[in-house]
Amino acid sequence: MTRPRAVIVVTGSELVRGDRRDLNGPFLASELLRLGLEPARIVIVGDREDELAEALAEGVQADLCVVSGGLGPTHDDRTVELVARGAGVGLRLDEDLHSEIEGISRRFAERMGRPYVDFETGVSKQATIPEGALSLGLAGTAPGLVLERDGSVVVVLPGPPAELQRLWTRALATEPVQRVLARTQAPELRQLRFFGASESAVAKALADAGGDGDGVEATICARDFEIHVDLVVDAGAEQRADELTARLVAPIERYLFSRDERPVEQIVLDLCRERGLTLATAESCTGGMVAERLTSIPGASAVFVGGIVAYADEVKARELGVPADVLERHGAVSGETAAAMAEGARVRLGADVAVAVTGIAGPDGGSADKPVGLVYLHGEGPDGARSVDFVFPGDRESIRRRAAVTALHLVRRLLAQSRDAPA
Amino acid sequence: MTRPRAVIVVTGSELVRGDRRDLNGPFLASELLRLGLEPARIVIVGDREDELAEALAEGVQADLCVVSGGLGPTHDDRTVELVARGAGVGLRLDEDLHSEIEGISRRFAERMGRPYVDFETGVSKQATIPEGALSLGLAGTAPGLVLERDGSVVVVLPGPPAELQRLWTRALATEPVQRVLARTQAPELRQLRFFGASESAVAKALADAGGDGDGVEATICARDFEIHVDLVVDAGAEQRADELTARLVAPIERYLFSRDERPVEQIVLDLCRERGLTLATAESCTGGMVAERLTSIPGASAVFVGGIVAYADEVKARELGVPADVLERHGAVSGETAAAMAEGARVRLGADVAVAVTGIAGPDGGSADKPVGLVYLHGEGPDGARSVDFVFPGDRESIRRRAAVTALHLVRRLLAQSRDAPA
Repeated sequence: MTRPRAVIVVTGSELVRGDRRDLNGPFLASELLRLGLEPARIVIVGDREDELAEALAEGVQADLCVVSGGLGPTHDDRTVELVARGAGVGLRLDEDLHSEIEGISRRFAERMGRPYVDFETGVSKQATIPEGALSLGLAGTAPGLVLERDGSVVVVLPGPPAELQRLWTRALATEPVQRVLARTQAPELRQLRFFGASESAVAKALADAGGDGDGVEATICARDFEIHVDLVVDAGAEQRADELTARLVAPIERYLFSRDERPVEQIVLDLCRERGLTLATAESCTGGMVAERLTSIPGASAVFVGGIVAYADEVKARELGVPADVLERHGAVSGETAAAMAEGARVRLGADVAVAVTGIAGPDGGSADKPVGLVYLHGEGPDGARSVDFVFPGDRESIRRRAAVTALHLVRRLLAQSRDAPA
Repeated sequence: MTRPRAVIVVTGSELVRGDRRDLNGPFLASELLRLGLEPARIVIVGDREDELAEALAEGVQADLCVVSGGLGPTHDDRTVELVARGAGVGLRLDEDLHSEIEGISRRFAERMGRPYVDFETGVSKQATIPEGALSLGLAGTAPGLVLERDGSVVVVLPGPPAELQRLWTRALATEPVQRVLARTQAPELRQLRFFGASESAVAKALADAGGDGDGVEATICARDFEIHVDLVVDAGAEQRADELTARLVAPIERYLFSRDERPVEQIVLDLCRERGLTLATAESCTGGMVAERLTSIPGASAVFVGGIVAYADEVKARELGVPADVLERHGAVSGETAAAMAEGARVRLGADVAVAVTGIAGPDGGSADKPVGLVYLHGEGPDGARSVDFVFPGDRESIRRRAAVTALHLVRRLLAQSRDAPA
């Protein structure tokens, strides 16, 4: 099956200068993929007329082109004019849109104590749309638009991600977009998530399993120190996907932790909840990152009671009860301290399960014995404990993030192990 | 001055499908801007031959084109071949590169216990480069490359960000890239950072100040609930930039917190360090995010002693000493609890300054009295206290991030206020 070709054009000077990372391109790309289109390229371009005109003229050649940004009231906001030029259609002032935007602008002018005349040019500009375009409704005073021409469709959306996502939902319901979607079939998307296996080991397992093709496309992607395999399965290729998955997983099954989209912090909370266990954290080098990830999940409070960020040794001693002689003999970065921190968190915070992290995130503080990147982790629960240590490569940020994700997987394994253990 | 035009082509199927966010485009764009080039577009494209060929053929038209990714040993890694085709040059096997890559691959094969013959095709592929290209050295077994043709230069770099950044430094030192840089002059980059002003208030201040142009380009960008103004100042336009900045800042000066790149967590740590103060946190709804941000800064341990993530009320009472009757009468989400949490953190953790956050991040837990998004913040130090409450809009993630950044700015103001107060 040939999927309709989709192009995303993201406009914004701050994006093309690297001042800010674009969120709309990845959002739209995964939406298009999910719907059965082929996201062919994402083009990020500033508001210079020649560059934007060229990017839009190329974009509108695709079966579906989605454009984000450049819809504001000023002369720098050129998206609508250049989409029309690229598609070879004229512009017209839409009277209904004009009244709607005028109403909003008049109320705004009044609230700000400014004369409406200041806004008039902007209102006319924003109510001027390509011939034949449909309005998707307003984001602020900017209309989202859908334009169909010769079977190609352009969707024009505002730049702020929340507004873009809101009007994208409306765009999907329009007839022109529905006509593009009718030419394809949404694939099934499957996930496999591994922790502890290298990207090349997973790539080898995929290749040995026969690789992708025949209606199954596989992408291997290292993300936050996990390896994610995403499968795009065309209708009719489900059995091929089942076989490929089984063969891929077989040699690396012990690293597989999920076949769905739940992040590890969610899995940890779910494992605790299933068994009625509460959870606490004790962190040194990760500085609260483990607790922050756990509490990012709605409903975390049913399981997670709290955590201690014990950065100074006095806090490790006073708040977590790490014995002075453990700190003295083994040091703050040691397996003994990690174990005492976990125990302290369980006892002090009254939790069933606790995980502790202590390490040297750098760039300073390392020694020949205890280099930057050395991290000790310890988890304990009602049925036992697990501990592990690593020397993680990379910079401070990378070491901290890797230590945090490893801590979460340590608790996951601890909980899965005791769940699966014979009673 | 017309700056040389630069195009960035980022390859990777997982990027064009939205599975992962690209880091290389923004890195390269800000590098190019800093060096005095005009980053015209960032194109993200998968490994489909037709799409990649087209993107590269367009890219090599620019004065400088930087390409990331697609340098691996398999047939899916087509960047080098398609760069050569786009530039209209042939390919040749580089004998020196071949020996170098062969050596690495033989050692790797031996370590893995696999026959070298498995690697031979890949080695030849990776040692095959465009006629006239220079090698920048290897990332793994993939060479970075520089190719000059008719005054246009293409730099080809590996996809992993750390490797890309390493070889980018080498690319900058090559003669072809130096020749492009000699055609421009690096602009001066200036920053203004505001907190508490809206993006439109800053935009109005910029417009009222005369707007950009005449050698000064200004970008206004809302980032993590702060408003950042980035100025790109051409040589000779310094005075115009000074005047613009002075006029822009005047009406909104009380929101200006920085004229450099230091994030607020760094400013807070610096303010504490200057005065020899230690710092602690007490967090409920932010779940460790404030501590995590503070400890992301190298050397934080000189100031930050630790924090308590008090998610459950029992933890607020036991670990932070929030009185039972405060929790009962005012609730866990109240100004009184925030104040008691901050005091508890100072006393229990032995810190001079503490900041506390308690709120309802949602999606559940809100009521008519205390809606989702309601957040109380309290900071206190040796010279006084500051507190504030908000109802933040948005989803859980947005409310938490906004509460965390507001907590950091609250401490910053507390410290700046007592620093600037008459003795």
